[in-house]
Amino acid sequence: MRERFRVWETIVVHWGDMDALGHVNNARYFTYCETARFRYFGEIGLAELGEGGRYGPVLASASCNFRRQVHYPATLEVGTRTSRLGTTSFTMEYAIFLAGTEELAADGSAVVVWLDYQAGRSLPLPAVLRERLGALDSPAD
Amino acid sequence: MRERFRVWETIVVHWGDMDALGHVNNARYFTYCETARFRYFGEIGLAELGEGGRYGPVLASASCNFRRQVHYPATLEVGTRTSRLGTTSFTMEYAIFLAGTEELAADGSAVVVWLDYQAGRSLPLPAVLRERLGALDSPAD
Amino acid sequence: MRERFRVWETIVVHWGDMDALGHVNNARYFTYCETARFRYFGEIGLAELGEGGRYGPVLASASCNFRRQVHYPATLEVGTRTSRLGTTSFTMEYAIFLAGTEELAADGSAVVVWLDYQAGRSLPLPAVLRERLGALDSPAD
Amino acid sequence: MRERFRVWETIVVHWGDMDALGHVNNARYFTYCETARFRYFGEIGLAELGEGGRYGPVLASASCNFRRQVHYPATLEVGTRTSRLGTTSFTMEYAIFLAGTEELAADGSAVVVWLDYQAGRSLPLPAVLRERLGALDSPAD
Repeated sequence: MRERFRVWETIVVHWGDMDALGHVNNARYFTYCETARFRYFGEIGLAELGEGGRYGPVLASASCNFRRQVHYPATLEVGTRTSRLGTTSFTMEYAIFLAGTEELAADGSAVVVWLDYQAGRSLPLPAVLRERLGALDSPAD
Repeated sequence: MRERFRVWETIVVHWGDMDALGHVNNARYFTYCETARFRYFGEIGLAELGEGGRYGPVLASASCNFRRQVHYPATLEVGTRTSRLGTTSFTMEYAIFLAGTEELAADGSAVVVWLDYQAGRSLPLPAVLRERLGALDSPAD
Repeated sequence: MRERFRVWETIVVHWGDMDALGHVNNARYFTYCETARFRYFGEIGLAELGEGGRYGPVLASASCNFRRQVHYPATLEVGTRTSRLGTTSFTMEYAIFLAGTEELAADGSAVVVWLDYQAGRSLPLPAVLRERLGALDSPAD
Repeated sequence: MRERFRVWETIVVHWGDMDALGHVNNARYFTYCETARFRYFGEIGLAELGEGGRYGPVLASASCNFRRQVHYPATLEVGTRTSRLGTTSFTMEYAIFLAGTEELAADGSAVVVWLDYQAGRSLPLPAVLRERLGALDSPAD
């Protein structure tokens, strides 16, 4: 399953990521995916497409399946890819592994919309962004 | 849409819930839903069904749709219900409104599994739990 | 001790504020104080003194004494005051009570510097800010 | 200054560690120090001294001085040491550097009390713990 992903982020779990049940809290996985997403955005040079911060990505939805409990200390590896290209949005997929193993801790997805931040309105994905996402991950339409 | 929910939790947004984009961060919504879930668990007396903390709920998946950006200061109201009863799990739905309005900030769902915490294994939902969830929310099978 | 404080913020503890020791995590108290601080800033109309967001407060230091363990569910009341006025900074004090009681959960302080955000340089406190802090809390020099 | 510290933890900043001011939020530094503290506790084998989780450390106070703003992406190195040994508590010091540099992002301290978790009461530090802290860091009395 790892071979589906070309962009990876390593996450070192904080002790404080655990909750009162003694395992990593569900909300923290969304932060892990967010950090992986920004790594991915860095890989494709997304920031330079936003015309000085006027346009950029915003999350429309996020989901995560918790496959195994994770406890501190742990290191995780998050694979990230774009699985679908829409008109004003794209869908990303994540797989979170225990580092150096094939053990899947969690997987998830997110829909990212291209936004005019001031106007709060979605815009068509820039052509350059479509090309870069396409070249990296060959997402479905 | 509010009338679908019988259990409500009020959430006062922390300034620190906002991220570098100046709006409430996506991961915080999962914490809001978690707080609403524990309120719901309190309403149905779930804790007393776990035989002294041996059994109890654990999250198998969570998702959220972000409908509007939320900025501090804000107060939110989270409606929570059980929409489906399975054998070893149940599905919960959330709707997060700007307080006192019909403006939906986000909605989401979660699958909750009944777990033997020591063994890390799912168990059939206790009959009493099924009854209480059924009586409160009339979930689908 | 409560009578020392004129500005109050109510904090409802999230279940997720607890850590693996089953009590509210130390870092969350700093978020509670931050929320109380922004309430205080609102009371004195601080935002309007920053010339459109060019200048404003930034934290130089923060400290907290944890007096009692707090467990979900809990409601806290945070009293906030300015205890000292400096040239480019002021010192704030916090007291966090279990709601409706004299039980002190924690107390703390913070030094807030008036900053030119672009330049990253401290500036003398605006005269109007000094007046308002003085009128509200009669801080020491 | 780095040579004062023998125990180090590397922290990779999450994008979500930043707040609406676009820099790492103050509360996150306390989580960074907490992670460094647990690393330190691991180095001295503290967990084995708690008689199966009955006794252990709890934070009595924490403080931090914010020396420079930190922005994602960043990697930090946290040096941790014990600076003072008391009867039922010890004081720890932290220094947080931008990785690979002498640039101090923050420094801080914490007082850690040895607690009977059930009774909620402090206990004298175990002799073995005093020896190990002494051998590692030669703290003052």
